[in-house]
Amino acid sequence: MDAEILCVGTEILLGNIQNTNARFLSEKLPLIGINVFRHTVVGDNPARLKAALSESFSRVDLVITTGGLGPTCDDLTKETVADLFGVPMKLHEPTMEHITETFRQLGRELTENNKKQAYFPEGAHILRNRYGTAPGFALSKGGRTVLLLPGPPREMEPMFMEEAVPYLSRFSDGVIRSHDIHLFGIGESAAEAMLRDLMQGANPSLAPYAKTGEVLLRATAKAENAEKADELLRPLVDEVLRRVGRLCYGVDCGSLERRVQELLLSRGMRIALAESCTGGLTAKRLTDLPGASGVLECAAVTYSNESKTRLLGVPERVIARYGAVSLQVACLMAKGARRVGNADLGVGITGIAGPDGGSPEKPVGLVHIALSDGRITWHKEIHLGSPGRDRAYIRHISASHALDMLRRYLENKPE
Amino acid sequence: MDAEILCVGTEILLGNIQNTNARFLSEKLPLIGINVFRHTVVGDNPARLKAALSESFSRVDLVITTGGLGPTCDDLTKETVADLFGVPMKLHEPTMEHITETFRQLGRELTENNKKQAYFPEGAHILRNRYGTAPGFALSKGGRTVLLLPGPPREMEPMFMEEAVPYLSRFSDGVIRSHDIHLFGIGESAAEAMLRDLMQGANPSLAPYAKTGEVLLRATAKAENAEKADELLRPLVDEVLRRVGRLCYGVDCGSLERRVQELLLSRGMRIALAESCTGGLTAKRLTDLPGASGVLECAAVTYSNESKTRLLGVPERVIARYGAVSLQVACLMAKGARRVGNADLGVGITGIAGPDGGSPEKPVGLVHIALSDGRITWHKEIHLGSPGRDRAYIRHISASHALDMLRRYLENKPE
Repeated sequence: MDAEILCVGTEILLGNIQNTNARFLSEKLPLIGINVFRHTVVGDNPARLKAALSESFSRVDLVITTGGLGPTCDDLTKETVADLFGVPMKLHEPTMEHITETFRQLGRELTENNKKQAYFPEGAHILRNRYGTAPGFALSKGGRTVLLLPGPPREMEPMFMEEAVPYLSRFSDGVIRSHDIHLFGIGESAAEAMLRDLMQGANPSLAPYAKTGEVLLRATAKAENAEKADELLRPLVDEVLRRVGRLCYGVDCGSLERRVQELLLSRGMRIALAESCTGGLTAKRLTDLPGASGVLECAAVTYSNESKTRLLGVPERVIARYGAVSLQVACLMAKGARRVGNADLGVGITGIAGPDGGSPEKPVGLVHIALSDGRITWHKEIHLGSPGRDRAYIRHISASHALDMLRRYLENKPE
Repeated sequence: MDAEILCVGTEILLGNIQNTNARFLSEKLPLIGINVFRHTVVGDNPARLKAALSESFSRVDLVITTGGLGPTCDDLTKETVADLFGVPMKLHEPTMEHITETFRQLGRELTENNKKQAYFPEGAHILRNRYGTAPGFALSKGGRTVLLLPGPPREMEPMFMEEAVPYLSRFSDGVIRSHDIHLFGIGESAAEAMLRDLMQGANPSLAPYAKTGEVLLRATAKAENAEKADELLRPLVDEVLRRVGRLCYGVDCGSLERRVQELLLSRGMRIALAESCTGGLTAKRLTDLPGASGVLECAAVTYSNESKTRLLGVPERVIARYGAVSLQVACLMAKGARRVGNADLGVGITGIAGPDGGSPEKPVGLVHIALSDGRITWHKEIHLGSPGRDRAYIRHISASHALDMLRRYLENKPE
């Protein structure tokens, strides 16, 4: 079944708040077999809302709205829907009792506006609101269904999951399953060139999504049940993995940092980082994840030359001779981090993130990365500078290269 | 003038990405006198895109689109617009040269798909893309104007500010000016209670925007020219500053980290950080800014207890007696960072970011922060744990508290 999402709220059109509801619903609806064909946002204006609803129903038979259910005079979604469906508003006694009780507990006076929240279009299926006073509802008539959800995400999200999903299951004609195949070290167009024939299929389908410096391939299949969808997916995913080889760092693994954390935990290894141009970003990404203390010993953000010597023991003369951004210093940073952190692996990152600090020999975007396990030190030189690649991009990709170097090293180790 | 925003991207309808572009444009357009009446999102489907464009033009004379400008076969916004406006596509030589040069620098092969990016509808006003290969454009015909911007926010946002705003000014009836007053250390409702009377005005207006752990107050005025708008704004901004006092860390200063960087530069001081629970986030935020090397000596991300001793010289017995999350360890981390970094100021942060690791005595969200200038060490204990405050929130606010402690210290120093 196809659906549209219609969000009501002048504050969204003014850019005061991000419309997270549209994304939440778009992510959840396909999982119960409902495809989202359009998002629309209109302000708190009954005429525009009614027009938008009519337009949506000219294209699809299911419209899900958020917002406009509250007690203020701006909140008119319910009345507008009743008007469009040609049904009268009716008092819903259990809701009135709930509202009265809530206000009694809060010690607040119940106003006429609040009582408005207990009226619904006749025939509406009420969706309880565990986190607020305004319930939602579903209304079906003549093959068309509208679902009204509240605007605040902390009310809308649980109402959707607990009340709307069971209601909507009647419209679902199957199950959609998908797998995310994560690639690092290849661009979107190169990935497409490699997989173009596989991207022609409709069911299962394969589509690329660009993430900063990465490619996310999503394989999706629809079938009457989960097992059949998985059967459709398996050959496609296997073929993609065969073609991309080690460019794939994981399937459904969330992120590169999460994959590295898993690998470190499974190999029982701990790391120490030495970061210069990335300025703590690699440590930050690893410690974004709960459980980071199991894998990260420490990180030394040695931004100045002096601190590279003081914290990591990189000899002054090496820095003077080769420069802070050099193969030699990256390797000594990796070894120094491993030693001072008393860790299994040490990683060193030194480069020029820009916008200043570049030279003809060492341009902005030049980054040296090294990994040491105490016996061998591996080194990688990357060039990230080009028009349109700013400081944030260079730093992010540098950290990703360091994480990917760890990933490739750890994948070669037995568990 | 009234406008609608039309975002193109199947990945938005699938909930894969948040539609931040609609919000960004909604926030910026009113500042140049353009009102946003609707947001629409459609997938990468030429027929649906064309229908949505026609519908928008039945309501308004200006439509701004994002997405669908890239090189892949999904990217069809340009062709659809040319079709709707009834103009042919034409090669734009300077763009072709730019693309060819970019690919030459990257050492990548230029494909037919990439060349597609250099074709535009005849009569289009090209909007340069400093951060990518796909330019945007504006096209006007018969009183209708469409503006096409790229999908990736890091390309779209600068293109909008630098190229689209000057173009759009012809549609604006007056000038809107605003100032951002940044507060740290007060919640949105407390700030509102303090400033409620000032928030009643329409021109100039004052509105609060919640940022993570901060309050951003935006004072806005509309007038026939910039000087008159500034005259309207000045008394309002002055009165706000008088009331909020030191809660304000800056006006139009961008961010707390930028303000701290400015203060450090003007005082000629350098800092060293010791981070535990924030895991490099404070260093990352400071080094997001160009010029960080002028103020940051180093940061030690001492995630394990052992590394607190090895890198910062925090005695094992102090950790054993008071625990890693304690006033004592925070102060010794600050002193240790200052010493090993040979810096003017040292900052120590140690806390429990969760979700695990809390205890009744030291719950998740307890954070100790210390600042040492070699003579005095200041300490702050904060409690950030409560329902709905996750690891990311606790880490972010902890880093903000450390930055704010630096800000308050530095503001007391002579320049």
